Amino acid sequence: MRGNPAPISFDEAVASIDAALRPVRAEPVPLGEASGRVLAENLCAAAPIPSANRAAVDGFAVRAEASLGAGPYNPIDLPLLAVAAGAVLPAGTDAVIALDAAEPDRSGRIGVVEAVAPGDNVEPRGAVAAEGALLAAAGTRLAIGHIGLLAAAGAATVAAIRRPRVQILCAEPALPIPDDNGPMLRAAVERDGGIVVALASLPRSQSSLAAALAAAPGDIVLVLGGTGRGADDHAAVALAAIGDLAFHGVALHPGQTAGFGRTGNGVPVVLLPGMPAACLWSYELFAGRAIRRLGGRNPALPYRAREVTVARKLVSAIGMTEICPVLLAADGKIEPLPSFAEIGLRAATLAAGFVIIPAPREGYPPGAVVTAYLYDEVRANGGRS
Amino acid sequence: MRGNPAPISFDEAVASIDAALRPVRAEPVPLGEASGRVLAENLCAAAPIPSANRAAVDGFAVRAEASLGAGPYNPIDLPLLAVAAGAVLPAGTDAVIALDAAEPDRSGRIGVVEAVAPGDNVEPRGAVAAEGALLAAAGTRLAIGHIGLLAAAGAATVAAIRRPRVQILCAEPALPIPDDNGPMLRAAVERDGGIVVALASLPRSQSSLAAALAAAPGDIVLVLGGTGRGADDHAAVALAAIGDLAFHGVALHPGQTAGFGRTGNGVPVVLLPGMPAACLWSYELFAGRAIRRLGGRNPALPYRAREVTVARKLVSAIGMTEICPVLLAADGKIEPLPSFAEIGLRAATLAAGFVIIPAPREGYPPGAVVTAYLYDEVRANGGRS
Repeated sequence: MRGNPAPISFDEAVASIDAALRPVRAEPVPLGEASGRVLAENLCAAAPIPSANRAAVDGFAVRAEASLGAGPYNPIDLPLLAVAAGAVLPAGTDAVIALDAAEPDRSGRIGVVEAVAPGDNVEPRGAVAAEGALLAAAGTRLAIGHIGLLAAAGAATVAAIRRPRVQILCAEPALPIPDDNGPMLRAAVERDGGIVVALASLPRSQSSLAAALAAAPGDIVLVLGGTGRGADDHAAVALAAIGDLAFHGVALHPGQTAGFGRTGNGVPVVLLPGMPAACLWSYELFAGRAIRRLGGRNPALPYRAREVTVARKLVSAIGMTEICPVLLAADGKIEPLPSFAEIGLRAATLAAGFVIIPAPREGYPPGAVVTAYLYDEVRANGGRS
Repeated sequence: MRGNPAPISFDEAVASIDAALRPVRAEPVPLGEASGRVLAENLCAAAPIPSANRAAVDGFAVRAEASLGAGPYNPIDLPLLAVAAGAVLPAGTDAVIALDAAEPDRSGRIGVVEAVAPGDNVEPRGAVAAEGALLAAAGTRLAIGHIGLLAAAGAATVAAIRRPRVQILCAEPALPIPDDNGPMLRAAVERDGGIVVALASLPRSQSSLAAALAAAPGDIVLVLGGTGRGADDHAAVALAAIGDLAFHGVALHPGQTAGFGRTGNGVPVVLLPGMPAACLWSYELFAGRAIRRLGGRNPALPYRAREVTVARKLVSAIGMTEICPVLLAADGKIEPLPSFAEIGLRAATLAAGFVIIPAPREGYPPGAVVTAYLYDEVRANGGRS
C-alpha cells in the first residue's frame, strides 16, 4: 500500500484511535431533545425533589393531630380536602387518609374512622433527592428515566456533548465502481450519534484529495475508497502530504487497507476501503469507534457481546484479525456463514452476529467458548416476549 | 378504581395488548432514511449482485488465455488495463492479475510473469446474490448492513411499516401536580419508533376526556393521569363510555392503575398513571409494547435480558408483579436498590437495570439465578473496549 507499507495489528490500530480522540465540546440541549445524548457535566438537584410534601396516594389531606382517637365507633368529622397522588399537601395538613379509610359526606366533610400519624401516606420534601444530590453523572447517556427525573428537577436544558459533525468524502476511481456505500455510511454515522454535514464525491487524485482534506470542516472526515494498492489509490499519500498519517494498513479482514490520521488543522481522518464489506467493517471497528468516542459515548461496538459455544469450526488465517459472520442455532451455539470474501455484505445481513478472531489464532474448534457480538433485533413475527 | 374494580394479572394485561394490536400499514421510505425501519415485505434481488463480473482485488484485467505459458523467464506482454477492486471487468477480460504479479511499463503494457485461469481474482456476476434471492425478509428491522446491501441491489425505496402516530393526552387534576411526564413520554415514544403527533393537556373531567378520546386521531392514544381511585379520576370511565375498556387495574407495581382499551373508532388507548415511576413502568410494559407492536418491532422490552445471580435478597409482595431496580456488582451479581415507592424515578436512574418479580413470588433469595433487564450504556469514562 502507498503511504505506509507495513500493516499494524488490529489492537494497535484501535489503541491509536483511542489515544488520539477526546469528546468534543458541550452545548445546551432542551430537555425534550436530550434523550440519547451524553451529559457533559454532573447534574445535581438545585432544590429538594419533591420541593414540598405531597400526597403519596389518592385520598384526603388532614392534620394528623386532629384524627387522634378516631375509630369505627368514634368517627371524627374533618374538612374534606381531596388530593390526588402527587399533589402538594394543602397548607396546615401533614398526612393523607386513603380513600377507603374515610367517608366523604355531602356537606364537604369526611368522617375519619382511623387515626393517622404525621407523614402517613406523604412523600416528604426531598424524598426523591436532597438538594445538591447527584441526579446524573457526566458521561451518562440519558435514557427516558433520566428525562423524567430531570423534568421533576425543573431542568429545562442540559449540557450535552455536541453531536460530532462528520464529513464523508467519496474518492471516485477512473473506472467507475457500482457500489454506493453512501447510504450505509450515513445510516451508520447517525446510529452512532454523529451528524453527516457533507457527503461529497471527488476524483480519486492525490491533488483533489489533499485539497479537500486540507480544507475539511467538521469534527472528523471519512474518506471512502482510494485506500488500496492500485495506481489511483492516493488517500493515504494525500493525508500524509497535508497532515499526519498515524497508520495505513491493518492486519484485519475485511478492512485491510483502512487508515487513520489527522489533517494539518488537527481534524481526524479515517480512511475506509471502497469494497462494501471492508467499508462496513472498517467503519464499525475504526470510524464508528472514533465517532462514538468524539460524542462521549461508549466506544465499544454497539452490539450485545455474549459468550457462546462454537458448534462448527470457525476458520481464520494466522496473523490476521478476522471478522467471522455466524448463525445462532436454537441451542444457542454458533456456526460460521460463508465469509465476506465470498458473499460480501450479504454475510452481514444473513448473520445473527459475528466473532472477532484474534490474529494469533487459526480459528476456533467446536466446543470452544468465544465472545460473539449479536445483532439484537429479531423479526417482528418471531418476537421474544 | 372506577371503571373496573378487579385488577387483572400482569400476564393477562400483556396478552390483552398483544391480542388487540397488529402492525400499521406500510409506506415507501427512501433507502437513505430506512435504517432502523421495519420491512413490510420480503425484499429480493431484482437482478444478480453484482450485475457483472468485477475485480475482487486491485490489479490488471486480462484475458486469461493470453497469459498461458507466462513465467519468470517468459514474461508475456499484455495491454495495461488497471482495475480497482470492485470495478466491472473491461470487455474481453475474464481474470485479474494482482498488482505484484505483473510489471507495468511506460508503453501502456504489462509483463505477466505467471499464468492465470479464467475467473481468478474475479467476483462473478451473482456471487453476492442470484436474481430473485431473498435479501431481507418482511419484519426485518433494517441495520446498516442491509442498507449497504440494498444500495448494491439498486433499491431506491423500500416498503416499511409506517411509524405509529401517537397522541398524548395529559389529564390535569384540580389540585395541580408538579410532575411533568411529557418530556419523558415523548422521548420514550420516539425511542420505540413512534411519532408524537400531539401532546395536549385537558381538564381531568369525564366529559372532556370522553370528548377528546372520541375525536382522537392517530394510531394510538396515551392518556396520562386520572387513572386512580380519586374523585376526579375519570380516564377509565370516559374510555368505557365512548369505546371499550379491555382492562383497568393491573397487579403490577409500579403501574397498578394502568388500563387499556379502544375508542369507538377503534383507536387503541393506554391509560397511564400520573405518578412518575408508575407512568414510566406502565409506559415500558404496556404503552411501549403497544407502540413497538404497531410499528412491527420486536415487542419485548428494549433492554438486554441476562441471567444473573442474586447477591442480596430481592423482596416483593405475593400476588403483585413487581419491578425491582438492581445494581450490578463487579462480580456480575445483582443487589436491590431502594424501591420506586421510596425514591420514585431516581431508582430507575441509579439502577443498572431491573428484575421483574412474578406475582406468585415473595422475591428471590441470595444465590437465585434470575433474568435481569440491563441498561446497556456505560459511562463514557468507564467505557468497555
